Amino acid sequence: MAPRKWTVLSSERWNGTRIVGFRKDRVVSPRTGREHDVFVLESPAWVNVIPITADSQVVLVRQYRHGIRDVTLEIPGGVVEDGDTPEEAARRELREETGYEAESLVSLGYVQPNPAIQSNLCHTFVALRVRRTGDPSPDDMEDIEVVTRPLAQIPALIDRGEINHALIVAAFCRFFLRYRDEGLHEILTAV
Amino acid sequence: MAPRKWTVLSSERWNGTRIVGFRKDRVVSPRTGREHDVFVLESPAWVNVIPITADSQVVLVRQYRHGIRDVTLEIPGGVVEDGDTPEEAARRELREETGYEAESLVSLGYVQPNPAIQSNLCHTFVALRVRRTGDPSPDDMEDIEVVTRPLAQIPALIDRGEINHALIVAAFCRFFLRYRDEGLHEILTAV
Repeated sequence: MAPRKWTVLSSERWNGTRIVGFRKDRVVSPRTGREHDVFVLESPAWVNVIPITADSQVVLVRQYRHGIRDVTLEIPGGVVEDGDTPEEAARRELREETGYEAESLVSLGYVQPNPAIQSNLCHTFVALRVRRTGDPSPDDMEDIEVVTRPLAQIPALIDRGEINHALIVAAFCRFFLRYRDEGLHEILTAV
Repeated sequence: MAPRKWTVLSSERWNGTRIVGFRKDRVVSPRTGREHDVFVLESPAWVNVIPITADSQVVLVRQYRHGIRDVTLEIPGGVVEDGDTPEEAARRELREETGYEAESLVSLGYVQPNPAIQSNLCHTFVALRVRRTGDPSPDDMEDIEVVTRPLAQIPALIDRGEINHALIVAAFCRFFLRYRDEGLHEILTAV
């Protein structure tokens, strides 16, 4: 029999930040009739963006990530602020974190960061023919180093685990699937 | 300048379940010297597994996911229990969620589910020549439908967003990268 939705009996919230908050729901399973507490991480939509220069370099960011208490290699990304479209948020995060701007953005759709315990989506874009137009303007808690790597090296960076953030790996997966039948020239000249 | 770690001034925990708990850290940024509260979702390691039959079918699970309050298409996975290795956890989740067992498991490494706000890792395996050896034995809150899809259709399912869980997309990305230079015969007969 196909899986069915749980019924929510009650709901309780904890304080959080603009970016994350926590909710506890008391639910009942239609399969067993039994009650359970389940936890949900609430957050606005997220966005990330694969910035590619005209000479096929990907603009990446190295930053300290407090969850794993280590520095990661990622693409730019962040929260879709109230009133922004995901594309506007992608352009803003690209500019703020790297100082680069794109000639055009192409949507690669979205993924669910973790549908079991998170309610939000993460939208992904590829930013084509990006150019450095200014200095990065990191927010208070950001501590970012901008680096570039050839697009052709990205699969090896993922395979070796140097790019290891699941949302970033998923973004590149979408990118490579979308463009798998096209050469790099077509990717870089697409509108 | 390379990004540096934040210093933790104090730490506070909320109740959670065996699978998720929440922590608030008061930290200071070495770049700005300013203090902030940051939230971390604490969890044991997770594992997921791509089960492939001898005739190139992938064994998938459809299940209700309370975060997005909808049914998803995923590979089997779950928590690495105390005392289990990731490989033991992968074999157990495969058996419990689908009733299938594997002739051999191959590690595809791990990803960080979200290094900004989560401390744990998600290990990924491919399970080769899986066969149905019994009935699934879902736990109390699981409500799972087992389905199979040809391996050759997986890229289209990801591209169209029918497989949309970031950790599952990341798992298949690792799989396709690892085996991109090998034919399907080599994948299925690898030990």
